[in-house]
Amino acid sequence: MRKAVELRRAYRLLNHGPTTLVAAAHGEARNVMAAAWVMPIDFDPPKLALVIAEGTRTRMLIDASGELVVSVPSVAQAALVAAVGTESGHEVDKFARHAIGSAPASQVAAPLIDGCLAWLECRLLRDDALTAPLAAAHDLLLAEVVAAWAEDDCFDGREWHFPSAERRSLHHISGGRFFATGEPLPRAS
Amino acid sequence: MRKAVELRRAYRLLNHGPTTLVAAAHGEARNVMAAAWVMPIDFDPPKLALVIAEGTRTRMLIDASGELVVSVPSVAQAALVAAVGTESGHEVDKFARHAIGSAPASQVAAPLIDGCLAWLECRLLRDDALTAPLAAAHDLLLAEVVAAWAEDDCFDGREWHFPSAERRSLHHISGGRFFATGEPLPRAS
Repeated sequence: MRKAVELRRAYRLLNHGPTTLVAAAHGEARNVMAAAWVMPIDFDPPKLALVIAEGTRTRMLIDASGELVVSVPSVAQAALVAAVGTESGHEVDKFARHAIGSAPASQVAAPLIDGCLAWLECRLLRDDALTAPLAAAHDLLLAEVVAAWAEDDCFDGREWHFPSAERRSLHHISGGRFFATGEPLPRAS
Repeated sequence: MRKAVELRRAYRLLNHGPTTLVAAAHGEARNVMAAAWVMPIDFDPPKLALVIAEGTRTRMLIDASGELVVSVPSVAQAALVAAVGTESGHEVDKFARHAIGSAPASQVAAPLIDGCLAWLECRLLRDDALTAPLAAAHDLLLAEVVAAWAEDDCFDGREWHFPSAERRSLHHISGGRFFATGEPLPRAS
């Protein structure tokens, strides 16, 4: 079941470096793409940096709306992640093609992607002197997490505890190949 | 054995989101710290973004030298990564305390940390209008990878193939706890 995650712990949803799905919406339009280059940059309030290439449909919708949702997909969704990472939202409706379900977010227009393990609702940081040239030069966006959610069988509010091989997060190798998140190591003495 | 990695493939050393060790040197001084918030931001030439807090010894040495080395530690080094992630280089010589060995880098003064699986030698991107305010506001540094190396039993020049439980990379959960990198999934159809 999807439960709210305290904002001060939201960084832990991405701290281990999983690959993500990034969704955006503006007016009637929406899109979703795969993004591996997403990381926390601050704890509280939680902030992210992510690379979303200029010219992509998702980037256009993020720029237009100032909002996005980062979803953390599962091993069971690996083929979907690979597919939406290569298709262009300019050419196909990925939601229709893959029968992607979604739920409304609480703070932003972008949707939470069904079947994922966690979700971070974000608003772009817009300090034009800094963020506009950063996006222009490096496709690097900064965003504040304004709400966060996780499946309670996978994240107990403090930490990930993946319950099965299928319900683990993914780490992108390259070309649509992934590692599953592995086992937790015993606590270092 | 450590072998050079082609620069255009260097992003693959970090693409799966491992936690890292960041080393810097300036004059006689050097330091190393743990950094989970490190990600590729470009392919060729390869570039990284990383968060290194202002006031840390490592940040001072990076700022002074304009250089750093990102090392990818192994499961066998988890306790070391946790230790150098909590100690301050202002207070202790971490190299001496932990008997950390290192090898000289090829392009920068910062060292390659012994026992790691891969290494990225980096020079800070310094576009003062962009990178100085980015570092000041978010402790976010941008760097270009100028040389890359990996152990050839773990990375074949194109992809990671971890040979054993101990020789896998780490993913930081929080508080010095880590996941090991898991198994590769079958290629999505």
